[in-house]
Amino acid sequence: MKPFKLAARESHEGDTLIEINSSRGTVKIGEGYCTVIAGPCAVEGREEYLDIARILADMGVHLLRGGAFKPRTSPYSFAGLGEEGLKILAEAKKITGVPVVTEVLDTRDVELVQGYVDVLQVGSRNMQNFSLLQEVGRTDKPVILKRGFAATMEEWLLAAEYIMAAGNPRVILCERGIRTFENYTRNTVDIGAVSMIKELSHLPIIVDPSHATGRWKMVRPVAKAAIAAGADGVMIEVHQCPECALSDGKQSLTLENFAVLLEDIKKLAEVEGKKI
Amino acid sequence: MKPFKLAARESHEGDTLIEINSSRGTVKIGEGYCTVIAGPCAVEGREEYLDIARILADMGVHLLRGGAFKPRTSPYSFAGLGEEGLKILAEAKKITGVPVVTEVLDTRDVELVQGYVDVLQVGSRNMQNFSLLQEVGRTDKPVILKRGFAATMEEWLLAAEYIMAAGNPRVILCERGIRTFENYTRNTVDIGAVSMIKELSHLPIIVDPSHATGRWKMVRPVAKAAIAAGADGVMIEVHQCPECALSDGKQSLTLENFAVLLEDIKKLAEVEGKKI
Amino acid sequence: MKPFKLAARESHEGDTLIEINSSRGTVKIGEGYCTVIAGPCAVEGREEYLDIARILADMGVHLLRGGAFKPRTSPYSFAGLGEEGLKILAEAKKITGVPVVTEVLDTRDVELVQGYVDVLQVGSRNMQNFSLLQEVGRTDKPVILKRGFAATMEEWLLAAEYIMAAGNPRVILCERGIRTFENYTRNTVDIGAVSMIKELSHLPIIVDPSHATGRWKMVRPVAKAAIAAGADGVMIEVHQCPECALSDGKQSLTLENFAVLLEDIKKLAEVEGKKI
Amino acid sequence: MKPFKLAARESHEGDTLIEINSSRGTVKIGEGYCTVIAGPCAVEGREEYLDIARILADMGVHLLRGGAFKPRTSPYSFAGLGEEGLKILAEAKKITGVPVVTEVLDTRDVELVQGYVDVLQVGSRNMQNFSLLQEVGRTDKPVILKRGFAATMEEWLLAAEYIMAAGNPRVILCERGIRTFENYTRNTVDIGAVSMIKELSHLPIIVDPSHATGRWKMVRPVAKAAIAAGADGVMIEVHQCPECALSDGKQSLTLENFAVLLEDIKKLAEVEGKKI
Repeated sequence: MKPFKLAARESHEGDTLIEINSSRGTVKIGEGYCTVIAGPCAVEGREEYLDIARILADMGVHLLRGGAFKPRTSPYSFAGLGEEGLKILAEAKKITGVPVVTEVLDTRDVELVQGYVDVLQVGSRNMQNFSLLQEVGRTDKPVILKRGFAATMEEWLLAAEYIMAAGNPRVILCERGIRTFENYTRNTVDIGAVSMIKELSHLPIIVDPSHATGRWKMVRPVAKAAIAAGADGVMIEVHQCPECALSDGKQSLTLENFAVLLEDIKKLAEVEGKKI
Repeated sequence: MKPFKLAARESHEGDTLIEINSSRGTVKIGEGYCTVIAGPCAVEGREEYLDIARILADMGVHLLRGGAFKPRTSPYSFAGLGEEGLKILAEAKKITGVPVVTEVLDTRDVELVQGYVDVLQVGSRNMQNFSLLQEVGRTDKPVILKRGFAATMEEWLLAAEYIMAAGNPRVILCERGIRTFENYTRNTVDIGAVSMIKELSHLPIIVDPSHATGRWKMVRPVAKAAIAAGADGVMIEVHQCPECALSDGKQSLTLENFAVLLEDIKKLAEVEGKKI
Repeated sequence: MKPFKLAARESHEGDTLIEINSSRGTVKIGEGYCTVIAGPCAVEGREEYLDIARILADMGVHLLRGGAFKPRTSPYSFAGLGEEGLKILAEAKKITGVPVVTEVLDTRDVELVQGYVDVLQVGSRNMQNFSLLQEVGRTDKPVILKRGFAATMEEWLLAAEYIMAAGNPRVILCERGIRTFENYTRNTVDIGAVSMIKELSHLPIIVDPSHATGRWKMVRPVAKAAIAAGADGVMIEVHQCPECALSDGKQSLTLENFAVLLEDIKKLAEVEGKKI
Repeated sequence: MKPFKLAARESHEGDTLIEINSSRGTVKIGEGYCTVIAGPCAVEGREEYLDIARILADMGVHLLRGGAFKPRTSPYSFAGLGEEGLKILAEAKKITGVPVVTEVLDTRDVELVQGYVDVLQVGSRNMQNFSLLQEVGRTDKPVILKRGFAATMEEWLLAAEYIMAAGNPRVILCERGIRTFENYTRNTVDIGAVSMIKELSHLPIIVDPSHATGRWKMVRPVAKAAIAAGADGVMIEVHQCPECALSDGKQSLTLENFAVLLEDIKKLAEVEGKKI
């Protein structure tokens, strides 16, 4: 018997469909839909972020991403703009009508962050930060739960269970690559996890090919693979100028390349019978 | 600088296209084509094999697979029919006109095996059996080189280099999953390897979702992901009666499910602009 | 150039020696000493804990362990007694004169926990909980920093760097096993990390064979290996009745087996020229 | 139930003790003994090899190692002297009276190799080369079976089972490190495997810290850890001039450092009650 309950397919009739309302309409995440989340790794400044947000909104992106609190391996790296970044995200949403998602790192920041954004994200390194899971579980915001980079699918679903057991059923799983011995790429996307999770759970699952691969050239083929494998969406890093990015420039797409990918995704979504 | 030379993209103008002639025409493996290889894990008997070979040939499969020498983790498991299996493969080819591929395990068997089949396969466990690589490198048959289940892409390309340096340029790389900590699936398909290999090398790359996942339900989504990620083909285990199979029944598709997958593959190949 | 600075060997003259004062004297952790930390996985009740604390103190254990806040994979597992557990730890210390260590999981609990114990522990799952690292870095308590179960040594030292950069130089690294494909044991102890860390850093390093192996029969040989490999100490789970333990009973030693191990450790410490 | 039979502890009364006779006496490998195998990675030339063989013999080494057929990741690396190397090994044995061990890579070479040496070695990359396992299983020479760098313990014991089922009960298991995500070291020694294998099997187990770590500075601490963990011996790479070595110089000990390690090993063997 599987140790997770609320997250288990058996506990829910059909698939969970998560709806996020905004002035532009309702974004739906789950079976039957193909959701595209895009934006730069970090919110680096007001002008730049509002600029790219407008462009991405015009392209039809469903959800805007941008980090205000960044988990960095080194204490000496840029760690995000904090509350200032949150304010920029809120402004971007107001201007574009597109809902926004950002990562929260600390239990003490959950209340602050949820006041500014539509969707909370728990990052890979915090997938087993059980206090944080419970805290986002006490909010009424959907939560994108990234898979720990060395977490089994069972542990991942148990992390979702923590959020759900705390009262929040709106969990979106995000496969973002696992750590292996391979050195040519940053992480290894577990593409099989998409269908395995669909078998085990009723929760939506999306894929983040940008963090998973760490190489922009691989983002397009892996994003396409994700849709073909049955994922409910993708999360893509896009930057006006990847080589100027304060973090993760190597894996960010230019706007031109993102436009090409978006066309690919639309074609595949059609083949798969998914609304986009 | 990369340590492989003949396998490196720089050493070859354009992509390598491998052609296999048979009475039915020429099978092409490489960029621009989508090749489907199918058949049971092992050749278990003459009647059964000829039967499924005919059906698969009628469905349009490009290459028939079937193990005559099986590498088994336990010395007490069914290890294949040996030369009798090779004869059945040759007969299937004669009847259907579809070329056949089989694995060779021992340097001493290379001459025997190449007398019966069109394509040689080196399995995951033998990817660094350097004597075997050199021996198949001395034949004039195309070689499907499966990635070692814990091999880096660099080691994999160096294994291809062994075959090429021995005189055989016709190597087809096959991603078949790597070993990770995950227990719900047998192995983890490294979908990103498809595009990374395309960047590094001019050799064709295909994906084996059957061995990679170990679960038949995952074969369809992962095979589709492979095509969307840019793979030049897929290798699929199909069995008339998966639950009766002497090996790997859990991962084999029924003929009905394979037919469904084949339709999916055709649609995706069209989207990708690949001939099938 | 290595990305860590304060943790790097070059930044410190000789090895860091951490001293913890108590009514019994001063416990020293670092090169030249062999420190034994022992106790049950979790503080399960006042009577039981005080009982085992007295016995372990009499045996000469240098530091008592016991979890008050337990990070559990499932939200439905016993998660510790919380502040009540902290009070029991403080009482055990008062009675025995042996300093105590416990894990802290949430930034909001750091102040509370440090009021009761002598040494703070950051667990494997929180090794990259950067907020927590900074928070324990602002205390004046030594911190046992467990290696993330899939963390590279570089990431581990960067996690130590977070604590040190926040103002706390007293970090004790603890190898507790990494996740691999092996299923017979829970994790795989990276015994080579002991000497590699000694080469890279001036910080003390200890080994936790109990969590690393998950099997009590392996605790003795792996603990001995740790001392022979140059570790500055070991952390051992001991329980009066392993089969009654609320968590991790399978890996806990009985008091009898712990006594045997302690004799082994003393002999090896002597061979290694370490004070115990 | 475990899938291996002949290798299983239950199938044998007590531990297997393997005896190798030579003009100097009988070398014993198994419980109660601490066997030291040493020599350069490859036999690079007659003079050099005989020279180091004499020195190692004088130091009391029980078995001399040296590769004549070397499995190299690249086809362009030095692959050993072949039969010439075997002749040098045989001469070294004749002069020193110390038995010799070398790796065999190809089923076709087994007969040749066994004519020259006392112990055959199957390397990590060939642990699941089942034809080779069967072929060495048909000889009457003891076989050192290295663990595949990504093999589970169960697969390792099943590989031993192949040799035993073919008629050769004299298998010596050798842990040589597994592949993980860590990049500071070449492989990660699974020190816990020593005791786990002792629990599962009656076969002797030794450790090769040279290949496992890839760094000579780590060889001493890891070799010591192996003895403390209960290993029946160690296999150490020693070279007169590590920086001139044609292969694996970075992990080879100088004769001076090997002498220091040998003293350590003797002390630990004494503590462990093992004959050396």
